[in-house]
Amino acid sequence: MKDNRLEQIVRFCKLLDKEKFIQRRTYLSDGERLENDAEHAWHMAVMALLLSGYSNEKVDVLKVVSILLVHDLVEIYAGDTFAYDEEGKKTQRQRELAAADRLFSQLPDELAQRMRSLWDEFEEWATPEAKFAHSLDNFQPLLLQNASGYRAWKEGGRRLSEVLERNARSAEGSLALWEYARENFIQPAIDAGTLKDDTL
Amino acid sequence: MKDNRLEQIVRFCKLLDKEKFIQRRTYLSDGERLENDAEHAWHMAVMALLLSGYSNEKVDVLKVVSILLVHDLVEIYAGDTFAYDEEGKKTQRQRELAAADRLFSQLPDELAQRMRSLWDEFEEWATPEAKFAHSLDNFQPLLLQNASGYRAWKEGGRRLSEVLERNARSAEGSLALWEYARENFIQPAIDAGTLKDDTL
Repeated sequence: MKDNRLEQIVRFCKLLDKEKFIQRRTYLSDGERLENDAEHAWHMAVMALLLSGYSNEKVDVLKVVSILLVHDLVEIYAGDTFAYDEEGKKTQRQRELAAADRLFSQLPDELAQRMRSLWDEFEEWATPEAKFAHSLDNFQPLLLQNASGYRAWKEGGRRLSEVLERNARSAEGSLALWEYARENFIQPAIDAGTLKDDTL
Repeated sequence: MKDNRLEQIVRFCKLLDKEKFIQRRTYLSDGERLENDAEHAWHMAVMALLLSGYSNEKVDVLKVVSILLVHDLVEIYAGDTFAYDEEGKKTQRQRELAAADRLFSQLPDELAQRMRSLWDEFEEWATPEAKFAHSLDNFQPLLLQNASGYRAWKEGGRRLSEVLERNARSAEGSLALWEYARENFIQPAIDAGTLKDDTL
């Protein structure tokens, strides 16, 4: 009794494990270890369950959670592109498109299309769900910066203008979360002199 | 403009980070590093999106995913109880109930109730969603055992009767996944002499 469809999906599930080895540039709250993509996605998915009421627009929570769970999968082939790596960002879109083709084509057609369309939706900021997912994708690392004593910002010599540029569209998905982050995660770093205010 | 409700949820979101430090007893596919609870939950949540069609009964996918995302949160206070630790399992339920009270009471009431009821549902195997979540919670470590060359089973000198006992209810949520696991993850370990068949 050979089920090739199931076999194909399970092989993909094994491949998923690689996401746990993709390191991000944000420290966990212990200030010692860097977060990986799988941890990041899990954290945001739970946050979506708790914070969906703070989305600007009404959202389908399953879609938000699904987007968050799979939005970084292309990094299995494309690698993580650091948000403040201007050179890497020039080729990011092209690298990730190729990775998406390679990755999702390993699934049965209808699942490949469903996963690909979740990723496209996120990339295109096309819907309330995608916008809210982006808000969380920006909010969660700010929360960890604060919880880890801003270690990554200190090490990177980060400036306020860079942080604001990265968060230029954060308010589109959730004004409430962006205002909370500005007041509670960004302002204290400015006050402490950790984040240099170069916008004056 | 002080939003105490949002403040309370964000504090809880910071606490969630601790889940990333709770180590399980299963090796990742590299056979080197042990998986943590957050990685485990993320992996299963994506698997639920891909494999929900293999549930014995029709399931609400958002509920399955939500259960999987939060089912180990009590371990933030109760710690991980190894599936083959017979002493630890004697006090597990009591420790986890106390942990659930302590944990979820930190959320605003309606969210506390929602999170708690997801956890209770899982613990009680009460619904098709809880049963399918358990099937995945058993299937995913078997997939990793296979992918990591059965390192944890080798180190633990695991016997077939123990594995079958742990999986005694796996088929309740998904007969297809249980049969797949038996044939593709368990049988090869028996054939290789890694898993001692003590059931004959």
